[in-house]
Amino acid sequence: MAWSPRRSAGRRLQLPLLCLLLQGATAILFAIFVRYNRETDAALWHWGNHSDADNEFYFRYPSFQDVHVMIFVGFGFLMVFLQRYGFGSVGFTFLLAAFALQWSTLIQGFFHSFRGGYILVGMESMINADFCAGAVLISFGAILGKTGPVQLLLMALLEVVLFGLNEFVLLSLLEVKDAGGSMTIHTFGAYFGLILSRVLYRPQLEKSKHLQGSVYHSDLFAMIGTIFLWIFWPSFNSAPTALGDGQHRTALNTYYSLTASTLSTFALSALVGGDGRLDMVHVQNAALAGGVVVGTSAEMMLTPFGALAAGFLAGAISTLGYKFFTPILESKLKIQDTCGVHNLHGMPGVLGALLGVLVAGLATHEAYGDGLESVFPLIAEGQRSATSQAMHQLFGLFVTLTFASVGGGLGGLLLKLPILDSPPDAQCYEDQIYWEVPGEHEHLAQGSEETETQA
Amino acid sequence: MAWSPRRSAGRRLQLPLLCLLLQGATAILFAIFVRYNRETDAALWHWGNHSDADNEFYFRYPSFQDVHVMIFVGFGFLMVFLQRYGFGSVGFTFLLAAFALQWSTLIQGFFHSFRGGYILVGMESMINADFCAGAVLISFGAILGKTGPVQLLLMALLEVVLFGLNEFVLLSLLEVKDAGGSMTIHTFGAYFGLILSRVLYRPQLEKSKHLQGSVYHSDLFAMIGTIFLWIFWPSFNSAPTALGDGQHRTALNTYYSLTASTLSTFALSALVGGDGRLDMVHVQNAALAGGVVVGTSAEMMLTPFGALAAGFLAGAISTLGYKFFTPILESKLKIQDTCGVHNLHGMPGVLGALLGVLVAGLATHEAYGDGLESVFPLIAEGQRSATSQAMHQLFGLFVTLTFASVGGGLGGLLLKLPILDSPPDAQCYEDQIYWEVPGEHEHLAQGSEETETQA
Amino acid sequence: MAWSPRRSAGRRLQLPLLCLLLQGATAILFAIFVRYNRETDAALWHWGNHSDADNEFYFRYPSFQDVHVMIFVGFGFLMVFLQRYGFGSVGFTFLLAAFALQWSTLIQGFFHSFRGGYILVGMESMINADFCAGAVLISFGAILGKTGPVQLLLMALLEVVLFGLNEFVLLSLLEVKDAGGSMTIHTFGAYFGLILSRVLYRPQLEKSKHLQGSVYHSDLFAMIGTIFLWIFWPSFNSAPTALGDGQHRTALNTYYSLTASTLSTFALSALVGGDGRLDMVHVQNAALAGGVVVGTSAEMMLTPFGALAAGFLAGAISTLGYKFFTPILESKLKIQDTCGVHNLHGMPGVLGALLGVLVAGLATHEAYGDGLESVFPLIAEGQRSATSQAMHQLFGLFVTLTFASVGGGLGGLLLKLPILDSPPDAQCYEDQIYWEVPGEHEHLAQGSEETETQA
Repeated sequence: MAWSPRRSAGRRLQLPLLCLLLQGATAILFAIFVRYNRETDAALWHWGNHSDADNEFYFRYPSFQDVHVMIFVGFGFLMVFLQRYGFGSVGFTFLLAAFALQWSTLIQGFFHSFRGGYILVGMESMINADFCAGAVLISFGAILGKTGPVQLLLMALLEVVLFGLNEFVLLSLLEVKDAGGSMTIHTFGAYFGLILSRVLYRPQLEKSKHLQGSVYHSDLFAMIGTIFLWIFWPSFNSAPTALGDGQHRTALNTYYSLTASTLSTFALSALVGGDGRLDMVHVQNAALAGGVVVGTSAEMMLTPFGALAAGFLAGAISTLGYKFFTPILESKLKIQDTCGVHNLHGMPGVLGALLGVLVAGLATHEAYGDGLESVFPLIAEGQRSATSQAMHQLFGLFVTLTFASVGGGLGGLLLKLPILDSPPDAQCYEDQIYWEVPGEHEHLAQGSEETETQA
Repeated sequence: MAWSPRRSAGRRLQLPLLCLLLQGATAILFAIFVRYNRETDAALWHWGNHSDADNEFYFRYPSFQDVHVMIFVGFGFLMVFLQRYGFGSVGFTFLLAAFALQWSTLIQGFFHSFRGGYILVGMESMINADFCAGAVLISFGAILGKTGPVQLLLMALLEVVLFGLNEFVLLSLLEVKDAGGSMTIHTFGAYFGLILSRVLYRPQLEKSKHLQGSVYHSDLFAMIGTIFLWIFWPSFNSAPTALGDGQHRTALNTYYSLTASTLSTFALSALVGGDGRLDMVHVQNAALAGGVVVGTSAEMMLTPFGALAAGFLAGAISTLGYKFFTPILESKLKIQDTCGVHNLHGMPGVLGALLGVLVAGLATHEAYGDGLESVFPLIAEGQRSATSQAMHQLFGLFVTLTFASVGGGLGGLLLKLPILDSPPDAQCYEDQIYWEVPGEHEHLAQGSEETETQA
Repeated sequence: MAWSPRRSAGRRLQLPLLCLLLQGATAILFAIFVRYNRETDAALWHWGNHSDADNEFYFRYPSFQDVHVMIFVGFGFLMVFLQRYGFGSVGFTFLLAAFALQWSTLIQGFFHSFRGGYILVGMESMINADFCAGAVLISFGAILGKTGPVQLLLMALLEVVLFGLNEFVLLSLLEVKDAGGSMTIHTFGAYFGLILSRVLYRPQLEKSKHLQGSVYHSDLFAMIGTIFLWIFWPSFNSAPTALGDGQHRTALNTYYSLTASTLSTFALSALVGGDGRLDMVHVQNAALAGGVVVGTSAEMMLTPFGALAAGFLAGAISTLGYKFFTPILESKLKIQDTCGVHNLHGMPGVLGALLGVLVAGLATHEAYGDGLESVFPLIAEGQRSATSQAMHQLFGLFVTLTFASVGGGLGGLLLKLPILDSPPDAQCYEDQIYWEVPGEHEHLAQGSEETETQA
């Protein structure tokens, strides 16, 4: 059993006190600012004459629930691949996302649904908050195993604010389209996490090298995460789009893109693998790149072929990234990227933003008909040309990269505060520093199990 | 390998014969009594003039499916935490719930949808039956590992009847509100199981002490159950409410409450844990208490802040219950509560009922507007004051506790029948008494696996 | 560690090149033929005057997502029961289904939605493609562990074409009803796979006997697949039916049938098990037979009792098949059926087809009222008698068995091509021939884990 140093009382109290402080603060802010919106308030909804069937609940809730599964099951289990960090992966995902949902309800609410001094909440705020939690979990993936829960909560505290600000600049000021968040979620989350990981660079990390791999069953747990992410990604990209054809088309394009990224991932993984073997790291991650790459454009008239082509490219680039680029990232750029978020969210996110630039630039009245109004209202109203919309999309990408980089840098400095309870190099990727791990105090139970298994 | 006594032919035949008997009986009762309702019958639905889009299927089925996942995946895997009782946990959940769905379709049907000599079935009966199965599985949690499948089926046979009766008294006679079942499901299921466990008290249970803990991967399996329960709890509480704002608001309140119970669980778990470490038992269970505690009130104008406060309190009480109260429950009250259902369903259920009393008592025409009719029809129609509704809610809690206690006592006496095939003390929490467990007859396979793993 | 022969460069390149070739071909065909349909195209949808709420997305997407979960999580994890073939089970399911979705969008599109030179796609094509992938995965179950990914992709290439052709003959030419695919999916997939397995018969397969069993946790992973299949089967059968009462009734009947097959599976498993013990193989598989057996008739006025009776019978036959028939299938008929698809899909599929014959033959204007038009349009319009519809249903079964047998035979010959990279007898059911398996190159990590577990 690995040696585990006793922590001082001050360090042991950091997590409970921070949780209580954050929960107390959000609760007070909720009491002051948060109110039901027209769709969730008994009096407001029943005022006026409309059918219960028109409530937004029936148009968005199934998509919301799919997104919710992705955030908690998808991200949580995807990161369980580490052999001794399963509790931390799924547990800290749970904690971080639960906090981010509350905190981003407030932050996004101030930016998007602040009316008469109140933040109005309902289905839309639930979906948006889950999206923000997704960005936080992407950043978590870059530093997985190398940070404690107190550091992670502080990261979320900062990142949610910057996420909300960046999203506000893109969607409300620049009026950029980004339904599935190639920019606002994937690019932002990935580069925030990568820069943060750069600041936290650990030159002695090879001390825990033996814990960085998977074991047979931890890889199968990770596949639970992968498959749920893959299945529900069409719901993710389509959750916030315009109703009707918009939501339908977005889901369809995402579905096609994912099938293609799966095939290119298997192809490339076998091509670059030793003796032609497939690598579970690629299958668990790169196969999902098809969902990321159409995050901006799936709502547009991308065409089914366009979706396949985009997914194919994303899966290929992502797989090659895991094989060739991740090692360079660490050795040359000193960025230790535990889950390879650069390959799954970073590069495919940027590629998705550029694809959005291209498809927006090709928008015509002929292709969209009267539907142009719901996809590109400014073009339909003649306030922007397609080319101008494309330039705004491109500028949105640069804004996102800037916010993410500055934010990640600030986050890194914050997390380096020496008072924070960070794991030592030799204890990274190891649950028992933060968790009661079975087997530590139950030798008898373990012994008897082993005896039976080996009988 | 543990010693396993051969069972007599009479004992071996109990399970198959009971399954066949119960299935035969419900099939005959279905043939006599159960008919499609207006929404599921081809002739009835097409008689008259309405749109297919109005069929209740489109308003309830997604919620139903989420509830269905909670019952079978959620409850089933949550209980897999025991190191050698995974087959029993997920397998007996499967068996018990499948039987309870049929049996409660009949029992609840007699109480709620008996028209012209027939029980009419459709979406509503499916949701109600799943709810009843939930109560049975809560009781199962209290006695997990200490009873055989025959005993469990007999428990379900009795409990479903009493559940239906209690639910009828509360919802139809007292006209109490309890959409998510803080009383009818959680309080009832928990105290039924706890009293039953008291009657079945085993003074020599420490003989199987070494099997009561988890192993690393069994805790990860349990987290699958936890996370699916957590994600879909908003659907659970909102599945049977009024359409429109009612369903929407219930989901939103539950979502907020759960985020707060998650934060308070992490806070308290680290606070009371050895060396500040988190305990998976708390995370797997207490984080869910936020769903239980708003089961009665989430449909009401609880306010987002109210949801956070309730969830926070429930998570805290539940975590403290696991740490300090469960040991006392066993040592002083002789109640052996395998899964700690008292902490997750009992106390938060009672707290939820009391919160319902409070929020119902505060109901005003101003706060609900014309929506008062759909939440509190008797108040809206002037038949009851808000205070009177609150008193009815409180009385509903006492009725529930009475039914649960008497029922649990009767259940305990039934399960103590010496003819029933109960596991010996030293074989509790052990699958191989009821299941073919791999490794028993496949030493070669196991051997080769072990060899490889250790290579 | 098992000995693993190095593969020649030619063999190692087969998988990547085939993936690239197939993806390239479908992408080109998509570019030429596939276009958005009226529900997904921005211009077409906004042309004319209808509400976004009428878009088919809102009536089918939740069911589609449930089906999607069944295909990727359900089938994928159900097959993880093998102790050393988890990566192959869930990974090849992923690859095969991703390819089948694209390929069957084309094939089914040519048969079903080819308009003006284009295949029009939307929700319906997504559901249909997932159904076709289901048939491919059923066939995969028969040959699981005995074939490489290149062989599997070639099988899918052929099977999707024959599936589309058979489905076209049944649904469009014979106008047979088969919403949940007792014939088109289960019977077709099972017998295609079984005949294919017969052609690939390996007399020396006992060389990998030690790998054919499960281990404790692989059985729990498999239960994830089982339970998700069981839960969502009502969505599967109802996904493509007429809206309104049709979809609602289909879900309800399937739900009842599954509860009964679960009870009969537990009854029969304990009855035929050694010392009255339950067998996980039965619980994982036969409990699902209730979904298969009502695949044709659940849409009809089967009655709730009829659903219970059908489910009961299917669960019983399936369990007895695993116990008594599978060994004979191998020893006498030389069909090695890894997952027992004959018991779960073959026999219950045929039984379901026959039940469809019976229930169609009993259809009356009285029982269906004006709903007869949507279930049996030809009977409602007087073009067919109920008896004639029944005869068409029966003929559909024979057509299906013929297509499946011929197709499986051809598939077997194709897969026997000596150039294809097939695993040697002693390496069947073993991941490391096609996958990088952790532990091979990370002895230190494994060693330290083992040490801790055994401490």
